[in-house]
Amino acid sequence: MNFKMIGRIISFILIVESAFMVPGMLLCAFGGQTRSAVAFLISIGIILAVAGILQLLTRKAIKGFYSRDGLVCVGLSWLTMSLFGALPFVISREIPNYIDALFEIASGFSTTGASILNDVEALSKGMLLWRSTSHWLGGMGVLVFLLAVVPISGRNDGFTMHLLRAESPGPDVGKLVPRMKQTAIILYGLYILLTVLDFIFLVIGRMPVFDAVCIAIGTAGTGGFGVLNSSIGGYSPYIQVVCTVFMFLFGVNFTCYYLLFCGKIKNVLKDEELRWYLGIASVCIIVITISLMIAKTYATFGETVRHTAFQVASLQSSTGFSTTDFDLWPTLPKAILFTLMFIGASAGSTGGGFKIGRVLLIAKIMRRNVRQVLYPQKVLVVRMNGRVVDENVLRNTNAYLCAYVFIIIASFLIVSIDNFSSMTNLTAVVSCFNNMGPGLEQIGPTLNYSNYSVLSKLVLIFDMLAGRLEIFPILVLLSRSAWKRR
Amino acid sequence: MNFKMIGRIISFILIVESAFMVPGMLLCAFGGQTRSAVAFLISIGIILAVAGILQLLTRKAIKGFYSRDGLVCVGLSWLTMSLFGALPFVISREIPNYIDALFEIASGFSTTGASILNDVEALSKGMLLWRSTSHWLGGMGVLVFLLAVVPISGRNDGFTMHLLRAESPGPDVGKLVPRMKQTAIILYGLYILLTVLDFIFLVIGRMPVFDAVCIAIGTAGTGGFGVLNSSIGGYSPYIQVVCTVFMFLFGVNFTCYYLLFCGKIKNVLKDEELRWYLGIASVCIIVITISLMIAKTYATFGETVRHTAFQVASLQSSTGFSTTDFDLWPTLPKAILFTLMFIGASAGSTGGGFKIGRVLLIAKIMRRNVRQVLYPQKVLVVRMNGRVVDENVLRNTNAYLCAYVFIIIASFLIVSIDNFSSMTNLTAVVSCFNNMGPGLEQIGPTLNYSNYSVLSKLVLIFDMLAGRLEIFPILVLLSRSAWKRR
Repeated sequence: MNFKMIGRIISFILIVESAFMVPGMLLCAFGGQTRSAVAFLISIGIILAVAGILQLLTRKAIKGFYSRDGLVCVGLSWLTMSLFGALPFVISREIPNYIDALFEIASGFSTTGASILNDVEALSKGMLLWRSTSHWLGGMGVLVFLLAVVPISGRNDGFTMHLLRAESPGPDVGKLVPRMKQTAIILYGLYILLTVLDFIFLVIGRMPVFDAVCIAIGTAGTGGFGVLNSSIGGYSPYIQVVCTVFMFLFGVNFTCYYLLFCGKIKNVLKDEELRWYLGIASVCIIVITISLMIAKTYATFGETVRHTAFQVASLQSSTGFSTTDFDLWPTLPKAILFTLMFIGASAGSTGGGFKIGRVLLIAKIMRRNVRQVLYPQKVLVVRMNGRVVDENVLRNTNAYLCAYVFIIIASFLIVSIDNFSSMTNLTAVVSCFNNMGPGLEQIGPTLNYSNYSVLSKLVLIFDMLAGRLEIFPILVLLSRSAWKRR
Repeated sequence: MNFKMIGRIISFILIVESAFMVPGMLLCAFGGQTRSAVAFLISIGIILAVAGILQLLTRKAIKGFYSRDGLVCVGLSWLTMSLFGALPFVISREIPNYIDALFEIASGFSTTGASILNDVEALSKGMLLWRSTSHWLGGMGVLVFLLAVVPISGRNDGFTMHLLRAESPGPDVGKLVPRMKQTAIILYGLYILLTVLDFIFLVIGRMPVFDAVCIAIGTAGTGGFGVLNSSIGGYSPYIQVVCTVFMFLFGVNFTCYYLLFCGKIKNVLKDEELRWYLGIASVCIIVITISLMIAKTYATFGETVRHTAFQVASLQSSTGFSTTDFDLWPTLPKAILFTLMFIGASAGSTGGGFKIGRVLLIAKIMRRNVRQVLYPQKVLVVRMNGRVVDENVLRNTNAYLCAYVFIIIASFLIVSIDNFSSMTNLTAVVSCFNNMGPGLEQIGPTLNYSNYSVLSKLVLIFDMLAGRLEIFPILVLLSRSAWKRR
């Protein structure tokens, strides 16, 4: 393991993190919340000091950076970022308990949006902004950000590739352009553009500017932290519709936007994952609407469709905003939402979950297996968007499913030590691991995770980070071999 | 597809089935329940008539029987067996609804033990015996039985192998002896021996002979149908302990018994799956006992251990008997039982579930994947009991997990149309698919499946058969290519 290089990258990550704390600090300072402003200042000081020491220790970074270094680096970076990101909450005593603060910020960076706060509105504006900022940074990835802005990599494209691969979601990360650094810049460019668009649409709907900033960056990262206790339920129907549209948009593979930008509309329309993404959303909206109309949950058809589309967009994109308490819906809609939690958004988007691309691959692998039994002699391949999928990608997708199931079951068992209902525990794990936010029953959309024990919170923090980084960067940290010097 | 040969085998299966109805008929005739006896007689008549017609149609069976023929044959055999096995219930009007009767007998053959009966004790003795007999026949497999007793295969060992492979549970079916027919005979010999032993121990505990027969064959098949409404709860502690021990015994790979029989005790003690089977059971019993002692669910330590061991044995072996309403237990014990439902028994046993052998393989595949990321150049193999596992077996295990997860999610969504609680629907699917029997909440151990809609019952019937036959024989029937003539 190239620990020098990893340490050097982490020091840069810390500098980026402290820079992103500045807006929150300024907001507190100008808003007269001196204690919170000071808390930010102290946190920034600590973080920069640690970063400085790391820089000194890793001055002579050695060359040679492999795929495994990329994984360990990403895993450690996110862990460090969360450990230090919790500081402002604790120092300002707005979230006095460190584990709670860690839960909140890990939930932020992992774009989960699960909260331990009973009263979100009691938080200072600066802290609310920092919470939502963590979504934005976590959504596209902090290392992608680093690669886009810092001239750290020089001309070493393999190095950049390993980091980007380890941090980006989906079964197979492609390059948009031959150079990885350019790819990172394009991704962040599109990301900023969409975020700004969202912000403009929200402000047009007369949302307060501060709320609009937090909601826009929270939507962009498909996070789910809001600024009101009622999440998005307290805003006008227009704003709810804007949120619905942008949640869907941020659940799409960013490669589609890049292709659209280049005028390759045909390729976008033919994209299998995008078609399934929209198809699944449509079917879910239709079935849930019918089901809610039969149950007469809402007064009008319009209201029913609005709430349905919002909740489907929220859970499919793994954002986790809510406009209504869907835990009160009938069983079928709840079962559909529960299933959406697993499936999640598209690969290469800011959304979480198992990813539609992977579900498609798994379905195709299954189909191949049945056909292989019927025709043992034939050589059968799996195709995606007309191209043959590499057997390595298929093997990794299978491995991902194995790890995914194992982590859910193990976490469920540990969390069950707390005597909540089984459905609460199951949805808590599924929701955190797939980076949604709310679950059902005792952690429904109007409730929160504050009552869980410290052990359960630590397990859920692990799940949130493992879910966002797609398991292996975190799993590798638990392997003894990862800690051997090469 | 060699439909002539498949039809011929199915005709033999029907003859075997009708033969196993005779004891039930005699019991009804001598017990004075004429209507039920006549119902059996009519059923046997219909079945033999169909078998006769099939025999005539398939006189000139063509040679050439491949792995795919084996799968289709097993799938169709079990479907036919269930469709005709439901007749006595319907004709006697003891279960007047055909779908209910089909559910009951499919639950029997698949060794699930899920029932739609509100009052088991209202059934005539003959019907109770037929229900339990279906467990015994389904446990070791009806085709294995056929291969053991009927000189159908001649010297064609490949043919026998394909059928045995398709019907037997586990990731990899080995031959005990070079000839498959001998293997089938040995398996049934051991099966009968253990069943008789169970019966003797039950009778020693002064259980009525009729009850002892039903419980012994129900335990042997790891089924779960009892003869009392209270399942095993109404019998003495001694009988509960006997049941516990035999449930554990029938969840063990029968290869172990054969090795034991041959004096190869060392090989048995070294068997990885057996060690994990016993290890998991011990850990579960200890944790649940502690948890129940803390919650003070039962008066004494002895009672707590007895109920705990019984329920763990029942769910780990996928039997589904109960001595207590474990739906009233705290969350952690329930979560453990829920997890045991998934894991299930050993490969090559009569038990259901995902099988411990497969869980072990999946865990080892995962471990290899993490190591492969760290050492991309190394060629890493997966070992089981010291031997390298073939990559084909690993690929099939992965494919099995994919199909397993898909079927559970799809079934859960359809069953959710009935407005039961989410946990009810989830455990109904998991319990039926893994051939347990009882679930949690509205289908807890003291309740039954009668309130589900016809659609849900059909889905659950599919799940039970797909679970018992390990998915592919049933999945293949849904593939268009399976129905093409070769």
